[in-house]
Order: sequence, then C-alpha cells, then structure tokens
Amino acid sequence: MNDLNLDKHISGQFNADLEGIHTQVQSMGQLVKKQLTDAIRAMHDQDMQLAKKVIKADKKVNEMEMKIDEDCVLIIARRQPIAKDLRLVIAIIKIISELERIGDVAERICSTAFKTLSDQQKSVVLASLESLGKHTIQMLGDVLDAFTTMNLNMAIKIYQEDEKVDQEYEGIVRQLMTYMMEDTRTIPSVITALSCARSIERIGDRCQNICEFIVYYVEGQDIRHKGGNELKKLLSR
Amino acid sequence: MNDLNLDKHISGQFNADLEGIHTQVQSMGQLVKKQLTDAIRAMHDQDMQLAKKVIKADKKVNEMEMKIDEDCVLIIARRQPIAKDLRLVIAIIKIISELERIGDVAERICSTAFKTLSDQQKSVVLASLESLGKHTIQMLGDVLDAFTTMNLNMAIKIYQEDEKVDQEYEGIVRQLMTYMMEDTRTIPSVITALSCARSIERIGDRCQNICEFIVYYVEGQDIRHKGGNELKKLLSR
Repeated sequence: MNDLNLDKHISGQFNADLEGIHTQVQSMGQLVKKQLTDAIRAMHDQDMQLAKKVIKADKKVNEMEMKIDEDCVLIIARRQPIAKDLRLVIAIIKIISELERIGDVAERICSTAFKTLSDQQKSVVLASLESLGKHTIQMLGDVLDAFTTMNLNMAIKIYQEDEKVDQEYEGIVRQLMTYMMEDTRTIPSVITALSCARSIERIGDRCQNICEFIVYYVEGQDIRHKGGNELKKLLSR
Repeated sequence: MNDLNLDKHISGQFNADLEGIHTQVQSMGQLVKKQLTDAIRAMHDQDMQLAKKVIKADKKVNEMEMKIDEDCVLIIARRQPIAKDLRLVIAIIKIISELERIGDVAERICSTAFKTLSDQQKSVVLASLESLGKHTIQMLGDVLDAFTTMNLNMAIKIYQEDEKVDQEYEGIVRQLMTYMMEDTRTIPSVITALSCARSIERIGDRCQNICEFIVYYVEGQDIRHKGGNELKKLLSR
C-alpha cells in the first residue's frame, strides 16, 4: 500500500499492522457509506424493511469501531510508533469516532415517519431531505477516497464543500417553517423532518473533521479551529 | 496525585508527564463547565455582554484541546506508555474531544434570541431551557469529579442520569410544539428554542461518553455500545 507512504521499518510486521488498520478504516467507511445510502433510500421510499436492516447493521459499525480502537492501542503498546506512523494511529483513532457517529445518523434517520404531512408536502420534504442526504453521501465518499490515498489536495477541496451543505440545510429549514405556518397540523411531522435535516447537515461537519485528520497525518499540522486561512496557505504552496 | 493510581515508573518525569495531562484536562473541564454555566445564564437573562464573552472564550477551549492532544502524542512518542498509562493517554484523547464539543454548545447557545415569543411564553421557554441546562451542568460537574478521582462507581451512577435528561428534553419538545400550534407567529423562535434544547440534551450523551472512558481507564474494559447490561455487571461486583 504505497498510498500511505509509511516510514521504513525493519519489521515487516509493523508495516503490516499499520496497513491493517488503514484497510480496516476503509472497510468501516464503506459500511457507513452504505448505511447512510440505505437510510436515505429507506426514508425516501418509507421502506420499513430496509430501515430495519439499517438499524440492525449499526451494531456491526460499532463493533468495527471498537476493534480498530483496540488494534490501535495494541500497535502503540507493541510497536511504539513515532512521527508519521504515530500520526496515522492517532488520526485513525479520531476518524473512526466520526465515522461511528455518521453511522448513528443513518440509524436515527430510519426511525423517521411523516404521518401528518399531506401527500404533496411529504413528497417535497422527502425530496429535499434526499437531496441533502445525497450531497453528504457524496462528501463522505470523497473523503473516504482522500483517506485511502491520503490525498491532501482532495481533503482540502472536500473541506470547502461543507459550506454548500450548510446553505442547502438553511434552505430546507426555511421551507419547512412555511409548512408549519400554513397548516399547524403538520407541526409534529415537520419537527421530525427538521431534526432529520439537522442530523444530515452535521455529517458535513464530520467529513470536515476527517479532512482535518488527513491533513494532520500528511503534513503533521493540526489545522483544527483555524478555519479557512490555514487551508488557503496549504493550497497556495 | 494518588487518584490516578499510576503504574510505578523509574522515571519521575514520566509520572509528571501523565499527571500533567490529567491536570490539564481538569482545567479544560472546569473552563467548559464555566462556559456552559455562563451560556445558560446569558440565554436566560438575554445578556448580550455575557454571551459575547462566552463566544470569545471558546477559542481558549479549542486551544486547550489542541495543546493536550499535542502533549498526549509527545508522551506516546517519548515515553512509550503501556497498560494503564497508555489507557490514560487514550482516554484523555477521547475525553477532550467530548469536552470541546460541549464548549461548542455553550458558544451556540449564546447566539439565541427569542424575538417572536410573547413575554409570558418567553419566560416559560427560558425557564425550561435553564432547568435542562442546569441538569446537564450538574452532570458535567459530577463527571469531572469522577475523572479527577477516577471513581468508577461515580462514573456508573452519572451514566444513568442521562435518562432523566432525555425525559426532561422530551417534555420541553412537547411543550414547545403546543406554542407553535397555538400561535404560528412563534414558530421561528420555537425552532431556535428546539435547536437549543437539543444541543443541551446532547451534553448528557457526551457526559455518558466520558463515563465510558473513565471505565475504560480504570477497568481496561471498553463498554461502549453495550448499554446498561455491562454497567449492571460492573455495579454488582
């Protein structure tokens, strides 16, 4: 796995250990992406069977997080990684926590139902949420690709995408508010939809966090809380 | 600091390093608790000056998180901790991420205003949110105490408190929905209040997560996603 560009080790097993956790995170990421895709489809089609499947599979996501965490601790204890190797382990410990929470969102979406909406309203709400959902699925897919190849420029580009997700979310909130004002009977369903929209919007933030940990691994620089300026500096080099 | 009950080290500096990060997390925790307390007060009194102060101080919370993270990585690289020492470092890396996000909630609360509510409604909404806020401040304070003394039984007790926070939150959501139904002009303010309530409720979940990492440090057992059963087993010993 040349993508990782690991430091040279005398122990081939050390390399295998590091590549092992890198690969496991990719598998976990793909499962979370599938969970999210299925959850958005289950919500859109109001497909209870699929929703139940997603809820059940969340256990697998949680188990993967715990297994990877355990492997990371074992690598630190046995291999005593330093420099870039250690940054990989630390970045992975942080990234899987974000992935697990995106998995939770998928599970939460699957409990949504919009009983008090009219058919016409329901179709608009579901279409809006689906569009926002697809936007974040795209972002998650991209960030997983950036993680696989540890591609700095890709990570920086994805980071900036979150602004568009936020704008789309704001638009949905405004739209949902008008429904409530027009017909108060829709309020319970709209509250559910709002909560759903917010959970989906937060996925964008979590993808941003993953981008920050990719930058940390590649550059050895912690750009959290520094906003766009540090990113621009990295881009302009 | 006997509380930590650290493994014996030949190097006194190693002990000092571990105690150093433990102390830094306590300071960060106290700052976050102050931020949350100030934010709830600023919201309740609609005190813009205090709100601005909280927003400004969030930078300090972020800096502390980054500093502690950096120190943890340095300890791993230089001291190569194993067993309980390593669990302390890992638990701290996870805990400060939860604390930083509680700090974000404090910052977010400070941007709330409830312009479309009547004076009577506003006083009820603010009182409900304040009550929920105080509940989570208490929970955060308790979990910080449990972390300081690494007290397993305390951590398990606090973990169970979140159920009450969830119930209080559900009650607030129901109450807020009736306002919207009675007077649609209140909808924008109620949406703000709902978003605020949800952020506060999530603090309970974050405190639960911190409890899990205390159990991980003390017992070497990862009880995440296992729910109440594992906790009951720990309690019954």
